[in-house]
Amino acid sequence: MDNRAAVLYGPRDLRVEDRPVPVPGPHEVLVRVAAVGVCGSDVHYYEHGRIGDFVVEQPLVLGHEAMGTVEAFGAAAHRHAVGTRVAVEPGVPCGRCARCRTGRYNLCADVAFFATPPVDGAFAHYVTVHEDFAHALPDHVTDTAGALLEPLSVALWAVRRGDVRPGDRVLVTGAGPVGLLAVQAARIAGAARVVVTDVNPSRLATALRLGADEAFDAREGVPRSEPPADVLLECSGAPAAVEAGILGLRPAGTAVLVGMGPDSRMPIPTQVVQNREITLTGTFRYANTYPAAVALAAAGRVDLDALVTGTYALDDTAHALTAARTDPAVVKPVVLPHG
Amino acid sequence: MDNRAAVLYGPRDLRVEDRPVPVPGPHEVLVRVAAVGVCGSDVHYYEHGRIGDFVVEQPLVLGHEAMGTVEAFGAAAHRHAVGTRVAVEPGVPCGRCARCRTGRYNLCADVAFFATPPVDGAFAHYVTVHEDFAHALPDHVTDTAGALLEPLSVALWAVRRGDVRPGDRVLVTGAGPVGLLAVQAARIAGAARVVVTDVNPSRLATALRLGADEAFDAREGVPRSEPPADVLLECSGAPAAVEAGILGLRPAGTAVLVGMGPDSRMPIPTQVVQNREITLTGTFRYANTYPAAVALAAAGRVDLDALVTGTYALDDTAHALTAARTDPAVVKPVVLPHG
Amino acid sequence: MDNRAAVLYGPRDLRVEDRPVPVPGPHEVLVRVAAVGVCGSDVHYYEHGRIGDFVVEQPLVLGHEAMGTVEAFGAAAHRHAVGTRVAVEPGVPCGRCARCRTGRYNLCADVAFFATPPVDGAFAHYVTVHEDFAHALPDHVTDTAGALLEPLSVALWAVRRGDVRPGDRVLVTGAGPVGLLAVQAARIAGAARVVVTDVNPSRLATALRLGADEAFDAREGVPRSEPPADVLLECSGAPAAVEAGILGLRPAGTAVLVGMGPDSRMPIPTQVVQNREITLTGTFRYANTYPAAVALAAAGRVDLDALVTGTYALDDTAHALTAARTDPAVVKPVVLPHG
Amino acid sequence: MDNRAAVLYGPRDLRVEDRPVPVPGPHEVLVRVAAVGVCGSDVHYYEHGRIGDFVVEQPLVLGHEAMGTVEAFGAAAHRHAVGTRVAVEPGVPCGRCARCRTGRYNLCADVAFFATPPVDGAFAHYVTVHEDFAHALPDHVTDTAGALLEPLSVALWAVRRGDVRPGDRVLVTGAGPVGLLAVQAARIAGAARVVVTDVNPSRLATALRLGADEAFDAREGVPRSEPPADVLLECSGAPAAVEAGILGLRPAGTAVLVGMGPDSRMPIPTQVVQNREITLTGTFRYANTYPAAVALAAAGRVDLDALVTGTYALDDTAHALTAARTDPAVVKPVVLPHG
Repeated sequence: MDNRAAVLYGPRDLRVEDRPVPVPGPHEVLVRVAAVGVCGSDVHYYEHGRIGDFVVEQPLVLGHEAMGTVEAFGAAAHRHAVGTRVAVEPGVPCGRCARCRTGRYNLCADVAFFATPPVDGAFAHYVTVHEDFAHALPDHVTDTAGALLEPLSVALWAVRRGDVRPGDRVLVTGAGPVGLLAVQAARIAGAARVVVTDVNPSRLATALRLGADEAFDAREGVPRSEPPADVLLECSGAPAAVEAGILGLRPAGTAVLVGMGPDSRMPIPTQVVQNREITLTGTFRYANTYPAAVALAAAGRVDLDALVTGTYALDDTAHALTAARTDPAVVKPVVLPHG
Repeated sequence: MDNRAAVLYGPRDLRVEDRPVPVPGPHEVLVRVAAVGVCGSDVHYYEHGRIGDFVVEQPLVLGHEAMGTVEAFGAAAHRHAVGTRVAVEPGVPCGRCARCRTGRYNLCADVAFFATPPVDGAFAHYVTVHEDFAHALPDHVTDTAGALLEPLSVALWAVRRGDVRPGDRVLVTGAGPVGLLAVQAARIAGAARVVVTDVNPSRLATALRLGADEAFDAREGVPRSEPPADVLLECSGAPAAVEAGILGLRPAGTAVLVGMGPDSRMPIPTQVVQNREITLTGTFRYANTYPAAVALAAAGRVDLDALVTGTYALDDTAHALTAARTDPAVVKPVVLPHG
Repeated sequence: MDNRAAVLYGPRDLRVEDRPVPVPGPHEVLVRVAAVGVCGSDVHYYEHGRIGDFVVEQPLVLGHEAMGTVEAFGAAAHRHAVGTRVAVEPGVPCGRCARCRTGRYNLCADVAFFATPPVDGAFAHYVTVHEDFAHALPDHVTDTAGALLEPLSVALWAVRRGDVRPGDRVLVTGAGPVGLLAVQAARIAGAARVVVTDVNPSRLATALRLGADEAFDAREGVPRSEPPADVLLECSGAPAAVEAGILGLRPAGTAVLVGMGPDSRMPIPTQVVQNREITLTGTFRYANTYPAAVALAAAGRVDLDALVTGTYALDDTAHALTAARTDPAVVKPVVLPHG
Repeated sequence: MDNRAAVLYGPRDLRVEDRPVPVPGPHEVLVRVAAVGVCGSDVHYYEHGRIGDFVVEQPLVLGHEAMGTVEAFGAAAHRHAVGTRVAVEPGVPCGRCARCRTGRYNLCADVAFFATPPVDGAFAHYVTVHEDFAHALPDHVTDTAGALLEPLSVALWAVRRGDVRPGDRVLVTGAGPVGLLAVQAARIAGAARVVVTDVNPSRLATALRLGADEAFDAREGVPRSEPPADVLLECSGAPAAVEAGILGLRPAGTAVLVGMGPDSRMPIPTQVVQNREITLTGTFRYANTYPAAVALAAAGRVDLDALVTGTYALDDTAHALTAARTDPAVVKPVVLPHG
């Protein structure tokens, strides 16, 4: 049995090849991968061979939004039976450092995260993962929805960091996959009004369909709403959106930077941050979100499959990675490694 | 113009009589009352002439879940135009004490609260209230729903105090009006699973209709669910429910006592509170909930009218107060003072 | 009886003149001012006639760090007896808006704040203030310490916003009066290690005397400590200090911008904010700090008089305002209006 | 080389005997024990052979407040060099469950805790512990102080759970070792006033010496202070103290149950909990406190040695366990296994 995988050798050099099937460690499970979402970071690695300081220096399997079925497990792994459908939480932290011990394991300096050099990802027939980071799914959650629990986790974490509360007004800037899930996550957390901005009309239309109350073309300026927003979930990474979003917050409001900006620094309206005592923070992945994500998906509180704009065979992974390049209507391509 | 009002003279001695229309103070509005919900506390005053230390020593108008239309305002009141439909927040705090200044105005020792001796309530044609505590309503929120923003506030406050988060499992004990709204409020806050218990099968059926995932007859014992609940919203006041509810919580879970018990003390499983580090607290009315309540009702996120099991003319207020005595299907009678 | 006052007519145009003694409003007390600290904002108004959008367009009395004795009170003021020594909290909010009601009255849009155009301040023989914002002092708290409860409030609020906890490592950038009080406030809150930076060696020496564990000359770069700081209290307003301070924080650390920067925007290392999930916020004055400030001063937990580097008669207010211009050892000049 | 240890065979049956020196596991260190504090739980096991459901069914070494020197380490343990002085955090959690992952590892169901059946404790020449739970100490922290970081952790956790803030008024009921450390921890966290109650005048005197502002004999009733307390740290376990302490709290105050009561249930004034919206919680050991405890001890912010009322050789462990039985002045006996 081989492990067919889409391997990145360099910018735009993706080769589908056979590798040995990985052997699960003592506490790991072997997962037969059923669905893997394409994330913007996958696309960025594919196009540029790097993201900031993370450089693809040896062949790397991309893909970290994965779901599949347990096929085997290590000697000390007792959590899942063979055949269990699981969502794969792609970052396994050390479990021992100060960050892990205080509940912020996403900030662990020693995390091993799928598709982050040199750790291989999930555009493959098989992956292994620590049993604790494989989350069992009920049958009625689809394979693709199971894969998208990963970006849902990003959105749930943003909502948690932003402390969205019932009745809040939430501004979501950027309606890519994470922004669209942030819209849904904000509503799940009780937001009474969700306003979304983007430069892509197709995405704005999707946002409205998924529960946004208002959608604005950001090229026409961010609307000053009255009353102003309680929470900003910034999912575009665009400095103009960050600025406009912060200016659109009420005193004591919260701004959460989810999207990565083009540079390591950004001009921030600090005088407004001070005078209004805005709380500004950012998110880095997520911690402890999968149980909630599974429960919400199982309860039908979130529509993940609405984001899927195309499915691809493993041999077509390169197409999945380039789909968004030409078609602005693409939201979330999903690779189905076993077809 | 007279102010027709239902006045309590003593236990079960309710007289509908004409009083002078109140004159709004400088910062007050005069509200023509359209709808007033009957609360369990109204019923208790009606039956017993007192609640604990609060004794009806002079004729008292009951009713504190009120909605109406602004008819006039005082010289310094500028917030609402005549004709504005408003929900009346029935407690006006001093605005100056340490509790008011720190955002917990519901704990103000000098609050003037409708229908709490000696402050008159709203089973009347007209009431006055500080303009800041009259909350404008959009047209599509019905009169009865506007009145029920008050018990919704109780439920939203319980959910806030319980810190219900997306994905949580919530146990609601007691499916009276507040319990039914707690079910809805928990779902609004993102609960993935809401379990409700009561001894009244009719109420349990209503709870399921309003979004509870499971309903249990408390006479058969509170079910130990697996995994256990994250949050208990105790809305019955029954000591057995308090105990069972706390025992049903996960470590680091939260218990919120909303329902008033029969006595000033209750046996609490403190060893479990300690070993699991349960956070136990109670609610006393609510603070800063009306803006969220209005926004959620306006956004159609809550079904308040589903609680209304009967409407009554002002002259029939006594019937509204006794409706629940004989019919277990009664949830929320509402008095419409102007018919 | 006249009210002698130091009145600013324009940049560097301060005239000491007699005005009518103010008459306390119904809820106000008349305070015979004993001591008033000079704040950097007073100096800035004196030098430039404005701070940002706040422009001195009519003659203005400066000074907002005031302490004195109650001499009279309005008809409805019952809180203080004549002769009570009080610290004056210089900002009186509306008490009615959403910010006031939720406990963040410092963000009230309608606050009347001493020495902020067009509200007169306290470099005068007498001022009036709402009785609720006059805080009684025990006899053993000196007049000058009573005045300095105002900047102590700034520091306590910074520590609260920064959530300094027992055992924390705190970095204080800037050792002006607020920075020196931030050092003390951090220690009061349990910081186990307080590191302070400034460009003024004299101030660094004072910081060490007041409890800092380490002091660094910021011109030589901010030291990277190991382990990094839990909390940054930025009291300089210098963009370089903001950047270095944020870079010196541990993951999930908190940065509090207390000092006002030269511009409305500042470049912020947002990538670090995101990757480490730093919480960045600012302070605008303070809320609900005076009771704690009084209690801590009364308990001898803070040394306020150590900051006083000179006292001045009212006629010498201009000297008090310019003392820091020439002497880098000046920390806090205090005006004693009655000598 | 043998491991001399004091082993409990049954109630009051303690035998000092030689056992094999334990071999550190891969991630463990071998610690040569220098000092071990006697805790009330040790005394309870010694007297009764059980604490609630925890029964001594096989010979058990008691003692969990330990400090010593690293003598060897397992193959994968790299954190400490031989010769490092370390405080031993006596509970090693699984690191994998929901509680561990969310930062509340003290609530881990699979924790292995020293001197809790069937896990042996530290009244011995040597113990092993996971390297992550051995906390390096600077030289100037004494051996006995290093051992007492364990009860200090209990106190720091109580203060954290009670959210003690600068300026708070804190009531500590019970002045045993934990109460005395709670007094100090409350002051470290900035409490401006600490009131302590106990029935033992000797302990009250010690409390005053260690920083309490007032001390009351609980047999004369708990004083109603004005203003009331912000936080109750209940360290006696006495139902009367719990009740009086809760009644002595301000609205929105917090009560932390630290002391274990005689029964699994306790009558709680729930009406007051509700009407004042008291937050009541309990502590179970502690989480993430050792770094703070070490830092505070190293900074000289806490006086641990003041609690030590006697030191004992290992052969005299039984005397250490019974010292408090006859002498009310005994606070904290410490066993020095190597003399």
